[in-house]
Amino acid sequence: MSNSMKGNRLSLPKGFFLNGITSGIAVGKKRDLALIYSEVPCAAAGLFTKNRVKAAPVVISKMHLRNSQAQAILANSGCANACTGRRGMEDAGMMVYDLAYQLGIRKEDVLLASTGIIGRFLIMNRVKEGIRRIVKTIESRSRPEFFAEAIMTTDTVPKIISRQFLTRNRKRAVICGLAKGAGMIHPDLATLLCFIITDIGIEKGLLRRALISSTEKSFNSLTIDGDTSTNDSVIILANGRAGNRLINGANRDFSRFQSILDWVMLRLAELIARDGEGATKLVRIIVKNAKSALIAKRMARHIASSPLVKTALYGCDPNWGRVMAAIGSSGTRIDPQRIDIYFGKLRVAKNGEPASFSERGVKEILNKKEVEIVIDLRQGISVATVYTCDLTPDYVKINSSYMT
Amino acid sequence: MSNSMKGNRLSLPKGFFLNGITSGIAVGKKRDLALIYSEVPCAAAGLFTKNRVKAAPVVISKMHLRNSQAQAILANSGCANACTGRRGMEDAGMMVYDLAYQLGIRKEDVLLASTGIIGRFLIMNRVKEGIRRIVKTIESRSRPEFFAEAIMTTDTVPKIISRQFLTRNRKRAVICGLAKGAGMIHPDLATLLCFIITDIGIEKGLLRRALISSTEKSFNSLTIDGDTSTNDSVIILANGRAGNRLINGANRDFSRFQSILDWVMLRLAELIARDGEGATKLVRIIVKNAKSALIAKRMARHIASSPLVKTALYGCDPNWGRVMAAIGSSGTRIDPQRIDIYFGKLRVAKNGEPASFSERGVKEILNKKEVEIVIDLRQGISVATVYTCDLTPDYVKINSSYMT
Repeated sequence: MSNSMKGNRLSLPKGFFLNGITSGIAVGKKRDLALIYSEVPCAAAGLFTKNRVKAAPVVISKMHLRNSQAQAILANSGCANACTGRRGMEDAGMMVYDLAYQLGIRKEDVLLASTGIIGRFLIMNRVKEGIRRIVKTIESRSRPEFFAEAIMTTDTVPKIISRQFLTRNRKRAVICGLAKGAGMIHPDLATLLCFIITDIGIEKGLLRRALISSTEKSFNSLTIDGDTSTNDSVIILANGRAGNRLINGANRDFSRFQSILDWVMLRLAELIARDGEGATKLVRIIVKNAKSALIAKRMARHIASSPLVKTALYGCDPNWGRVMAAIGSSGTRIDPQRIDIYFGKLRVAKNGEPASFSERGVKEILNKKEVEIVIDLRQGISVATVYTCDLTPDYVKINSSYMT
Repeated sequence: MSNSMKGNRLSLPKGFFLNGITSGIAVGKKRDLALIYSEVPCAAAGLFTKNRVKAAPVVISKMHLRNSQAQAILANSGCANACTGRRGMEDAGMMVYDLAYQLGIRKEDVLLASTGIIGRFLIMNRVKEGIRRIVKTIESRSRPEFFAEAIMTTDTVPKIISRQFLTRNRKRAVICGLAKGAGMIHPDLATLLCFIITDIGIEKGLLRRALISSTEKSFNSLTIDGDTSTNDSVIILANGRAGNRLINGANRDFSRFQSILDWVMLRLAELIARDGEGATKLVRIIVKNAKSALIAKRMARHIASSPLVKTALYGCDPNWGRVMAAIGSSGTRIDPQRIDIYFGKLRVAKNGEPASFSERGVKEILNKKEVEIVIDLRQGISVATVYTCDLTPDYVKINSSYMT
């Protein structure tokens, strides 16, 4: 029913073609150029980085999404095409033109996404040759796993999640998400590329609304290192090939679609957290019984961003004092003397003071691949969950020599 | 004239006694209990953590400073006495009482400062015994270097800076600063303890004003890891023993005092950055030609807090694209296409795009123990400098097993 990477079991939405090839843009002989193509124009929506320094592909994709329609996405790794000024814009324009021409579709229906080193130019002759080659493969079998590989940078595993469901008129529809993450991950998006394709038929405005809602619960609740990238893009394409009655209101099909989209994007966010640069574990920070949802989310994000909390998690060190310190500096009004803190099911602090707990029990919990820290504020009824990972020596090693 | 640790060359203000001993509060046989005592009550001022979770010693010191007077400071490492509730407050009260009694001074003239693990209780019988022993040493020679050692946690070197100057009536006055830093360091103070003692005679209000001004330029422009501690304290004592005419207005003596205090605190801040947990270099982030001082400072802080910038600096990786990404996500309105970035004297980006520069030249600059990154916004005339260090695998190692 669900997920990924087991080759033949992955269900794909109808009418889409995906592939990824090695074009020579990135160093090493990895796949670096990726294509999504729909046989018909799709309803489309996108969310992009809030960084004021935006990469050329982001500028282009935003522009092309003004009419909420697209038919192809060209993505590459190895070079972010960011901080590249006019020349970068020209290069991006060239990619759009080449792809549109060779696919025989409208230029405005082409979207771009790039990830990799900032401040370097694309090697355009390789890009052009790559586009020519990848378009030729459209007649062959779809290779979503190659697509997912081709957008990876420091990710260690490709990330694909797929799930199908039945619409009211008994049509099978599929939502498939492909993403890359690893570093520079923070709420309001980061070097995060996420592409969702679905064959559901849905009205453009509703598609955008669904994307915003699912993103809030998934990628906007995810932080790896607090850095926000110049290239983040979350794009959804819906081509209507499932044959359902077009979703044009908040009906049962819409809520079904929304909940499956939530599920797919949340799984992708968890995959990204688990595969954060150098990460050894997935961490869920849950703040509950807060006075407002805003306070809960703000505090959860702040704790999830604390290097001291994250290094302690790496060392399986039950240092709840650091969690308390992060709570206190999160900029929210709270009463420290009502706060309980749990690692997994174990209460380590009660009323803001040390609780008696088994050191061995906590160590066991912290040693697992998934750790939950629950902060019970006992001051209201709101709750928020933020996803992150631990901070390890490998994070530093990976990032200290990314360019050279 | 200046600095530290060369034993006999350190000039101390008149009328102060300093020492540090091993009381057994901290693990390992390190010095962990420290005393500053002035033979007369001093004009005093303090600045404390903005973390809403405040340690007991912070609560006490703030209270005792209401009348801007103090005569002794008792500091310890090994235990922060934070998140310890009512029992922690009782313990702190006991320390005040014991010390005041044995020194024969007023309880309200005793200040406290603690650093170390959060959420653990002090071993009070050792503290009491320690107080008894350290008070007995008052007849012997002052040992500022032992004091500086006793407040260290993960610091690798004690930090003392001292400087003397002449007042208008030809009296020699001294300002001596002692500090500890290492981790949990961020603007608005962090696990930072800093004690300034001086024999200048100065009116209480002016002393506080001078402290605030120097702190803004030094410790509030310093970030190691973005974490804010529960225990940060910057305290100044002025006992008037220099024999100058009491500074009671913004006269020449006051500006002289302010500039020497600036110098001492800035040097301490630099020592702390250089000795940040795991750090291999001191980094100055200078944002210039900004539209306002607020924008400049906000941006400099944001860049100095980026793990990706700091890991690149550790790896001597000339990755200016990460600096651009940090600029763009600093939440300030800027025009990316006017920005020049320099590593040392070398321009690596011009108008937000790659500049041609010698890779070897940049590597040489980044390999030094002190690195300056200059961001020229070319959009105004304001400037700000923020001090930080690189982020290294050792930072993670040190912090992943602090408690255990």
